Amino acid sequence: MTQQPPHTFIFDVYGTLFDVDSVADKCNKYFPEKGEKISKTWREKQLEYANLRQIMGNYEDFYSITKDALHFAVKKYAEELNEEVEKELLENYLYLSPYPEAKAVLNQLGDKNLAVFSNGSHDMLDPLIKESILADSFSKIISADEVQQFKPALDAYAYVSKILEVKPKDVLFMSSNGWDISGAKNYGFQTAWINRQNLPTEELKLEPDIIYKDLTGILEWK
Amino acid sequence: MTQQPPHTFIFDVYGTLFDVDSVADKCNKYFPEKGEKISKTWREKQLEYANLRQIMGNYEDFYSITKDALHFAVKKYAEELNEEVEKELLENYLYLSPYPEAKAVLNQLGDKNLAVFSNGSHDMLDPLIKESILADSFSKIISADEVQQFKPALDAYAYVSKILEVKPKDVLFMSSNGWDISGAKNYGFQTAWINRQNLPTEELKLEPDIIYKDLTGILEWK
Repeated sequence: MTQQPPHTFIFDVYGTLFDVDSVADKCNKYFPEKGEKISKTWREKQLEYANLRQIMGNYEDFYSITKDALHFAVKKYAEELNEEVEKELLENYLYLSPYPEAKAVLNQLGDKNLAVFSNGSHDMLDPLIKESILADSFSKIISADEVQQFKPALDAYAYVSKILEVKPKDVLFMSSNGWDISGAKNYGFQTAWINRQNLPTEELKLEPDIIYKDLTGILEWK
Repeated sequence: MTQQPPHTFIFDVYGTLFDVDSVADKCNKYFPEKGEKISKTWREKQLEYANLRQIMGNYEDFYSITKDALHFAVKKYAEELNEEVEKELLENYLYLSPYPEAKAVLNQLGDKNLAVFSNGSHDMLDPLIKESILADSFSKIISADEVQQFKPALDAYAYVSKILEVKPKDVLFMSSNGWDISGAKNYGFQTAWINRQNLPTEELKLEPDIIYKDLTGILEWK
């Protein structure tokens, strides 16, 4: 696979370790006719707003962005959002389910240093991970909020390297998001794209080192 | 409207002055079953790739990005793209129609300094504008490619200010893209959002100064 296998495995969170589909289910509960559309726009705007704020130099934490994106999505489809529904929809991000294979895969990587790195802020990440069956798997939970630079900015990945005291080449970085894999590759990490949706590779001239359909594939690297 | 009315009017191009819907029509011609989906993904990826490259510090011109985005969209829907079809789809961007009201509105703004500023590269913008009925309307055609910084980066809008030798407060900036309006506002331009699709305002805490459904509204500022 590589001359010197990576000793540090860094995982993205949303869509990579934890399944975000339940967010859509909850949108369907409150907006039965438009739940699919609202949840799709919500996710798109969440990512877009993080990108735009990164570009504009206008940082806000990911929780605020997630709330803003929800407001846009609900307005777009001419629905109302009361405080209670807003709270319940946002709280969904604290109670996501890990993907079925996640725990067993992490358990088999016991001699690697495992960490997570997400654009999510600690008020989102910490309750989610610490209350999940993955709680004991990671040496560190690292948020882009600590450096106020969102992935895929070079400064975001560089921050993680610094915190974990690792060279980029000694890291295997996992994400289900093509853009995140491109950013990690751009920085110099080795990358495994967890391509759960069977999408084509992003056309950014930063191909992943390897592609798997779920986390099981990374056991090749242990 | 304002104590000191702006003397320089800057226009975005795609979706603001020129109608991009014909791109979707052409996609339907070549991919009759999947044209809508392919053209939608194409446009989304075009914007996303510009954002991602801006964030990653990994600039490529907008023509290359447009081509890359097309490749992704076609692969996503499991279609084939031969050279001839690729060429014809991309050439579409050189032959867009101006919106019906554009020419008359620009004609009535004769005492203002009118310019365009687009993320598009000159190989896309110049043939489009110079062969259109809007050819004589503008003092300058400015591309983000000249400074290799895409909107909504501050450096992009700052470049236009410098080239046109204007202070931000003396500019009225028009775009149909909410993110572009947010970026222009973030820099300090006065902004008129041409909200052709009747969308909610972007939740970026950078509201436009005024919203119109098409370009006609800006005649209030003459």
